Amino acid sequence: MDLKLVMTADEVARLITQAFKADKPFFVIDELSPGSVRARLPFETWMLRPGDVVSGPALFTAADLAMYALVLSHTGPQLMAVTSNLDLNFLNKGEPGDVHAEGTLLKLGRRLAVMEVKLRCGDDPDLVAIATGTYVLPPAQR
Amino acid sequence: MDLKLVMTADEVARLITQAFKADKPFFVIDELSPGSVRARLPFETWMLRPGDVVSGPALFTAADLAMYALVLSHTGPQLMAVTSNLDLNFLNKGEPGDVHAEGTLLKLGRRLAVMEVKLRCGDDPDLVAIATGTYVLPPAQR
Amino acid sequence: MDLKLVMTADEVARLITQAFKADKPFFVIDELSPGSVRARLPFETWMLRPGDVVSGPALFTAADLAMYALVLSHTGPQLMAVTSNLDLNFLNKGEPGDVHAEGTLLKLGRRLAVMEVKLRCGDDPDLVAIATGTYVLPPAQR
Amino acid sequence: MDLKLVMTADEVARLITQAFKADKPFFVIDELSPGSVRARLPFETWMLRPGDVVSGPALFTAADLAMYALVLSHTGPQLMAVTSNLDLNFLNKGEPGDVHAEGTLLKLGRRLAVMEVKLRCGDDPDLVAIATGTYVLPPAQR
Repeated sequence: MDLKLVMTADEVARLITQAFKADKPFFVIDELSPGSVRARLPFETWMLRPGDVVSGPALFTAADLAMYALVLSHTGPQLMAVTSNLDLNFLNKGEPGDVHAEGTLLKLGRRLAVMEVKLRCGDDPDLVAIATGTYVLPPAQR
Repeated sequence: MDLKLVMTADEVARLITQAFKADKPFFVIDELSPGSVRARLPFETWMLRPGDVVSGPALFTAADLAMYALVLSHTGPQLMAVTSNLDLNFLNKGEPGDVHAEGTLLKLGRRLAVMEVKLRCGDDPDLVAIATGTYVLPPAQR
Repeated sequence: MDLKLVMTADEVARLITQAFKADKPFFVIDELSPGSVRARLPFETWMLRPGDVVSGPALFTAADLAMYALVLSHTGPQLMAVTSNLDLNFLNKGEPGDVHAEGTLLKLGRRLAVMEVKLRCGDDPDLVAIATGTYVLPPAQR
Repeated sequence: MDLKLVMTADEVARLITQAFKADKPFFVIDELSPGSVRARLPFETWMLRPGDVVSGPALFTAADLAMYALVLSHTGPQLMAVTSNLDLNFLNKGEPGDVHAEGTLLKLGRRLAVMEVKLRCGDDPDLVAIATGTYVLPPAQR
């Protein structure tokens, strides 16, 4: 695959903040390069589930936003790209802390993008979850 | 499968509210019967994504809580039952509104429970998403 | 969804046999109606795995062919429709016997079809596996 | 994770051949190390689907056997370890040729093993599919 970024990390982060009508950034893009992203969902208390471990919805959110960032950064500000499938495997308990997402673009076609995201929590180097997902891209504007 | 409820809808709803340390119920169980549940995540504005459609995290949350309710109601207050895998297919845009979850227990073994949840939004009868998932059950207490 | 069949069960079965260059039918379509199919992979010894239970590849094959039959019967002889994602949950051991597949079309869009298939083996009424999957449709020929 | 092999590649390959009652090896393990495997399903004509590309069942078979090899090599000859969930994303057409599987153990718990397998075909370096899956381990024999 010959991948090229068409937006910077800052542009993507700003676009996501605006698109979600958030009053301040809620998702941090730490590093963006062709085919991959390192991003982070900063810790908030809603992210915990019984047992004080990071919840499934928090992990899903981080995975889905990392995929959205990969799609936007490689195809431009196509806000209506949407998730078609997302499969999450939960591996280990996530300690309370930021959710770190390491995303990789596995395929970028004309109609679909397929990605994988590895998720870790706080300072723990162990994988907490792994996600694979597909986004459907809007028809190219000509 | 010979399935029997061991908790009522009210008991499960109260347990979930307490377990998540919520000050008021945030998940409604409309109907519970052996092997199935109808439940609902009442609408809140955080549930929308760009385009004013219901977001993936909101759909994931409803699916995961419906599965949790199925596990708890059939096995008792085992709060540490945890999601092992959750696969979500997004089918149609979800209009702003409550997320309705219709869950079915496909397998209840000693170690794993496998479930399916159909998701709809607001008054629209069309399916918005379908989830299949696996919960790992804690070892039986003896 | 307003679904309409554009091919008969016989036409679909014949098309699949030809497409796979098989010298005789290896997949039986028992019933076809708008949005659903009942089909069958007749038993052969290659389908068993250790423990004399039906293998994952045999279940996958039945699920994938049932989805292919649903796509073909609703969109016409588009042989190049391809599987994009297939998620299989294995529920119970499958006794040696035909693999019965009961498929439902959950979404038929212009670019994607999403389906669910329930799998049973032999005469056992219990579910052996459940599959959800996505097919990418070739661009419409005009 | 502290992973240790308890069987050699040859022992695992022989065990799989016997377990499937095959008269000769049908799955090659090219390299085995703690936490990972490189294996191969040698090409046969049944593996092709319409369009002369490698079929889903062939890719599923290679992914599932690579996971089985990972489980056996790290836990011993537990033939009754069974697949609980397998999710496959198809990325690119697979040219006729051996199916190469590169498997990684993501989690090895007492009850579940979670793995990822990357699949390529023939000499093409591009990914053809990626699988994530869960195996349920039989209760430890004591």
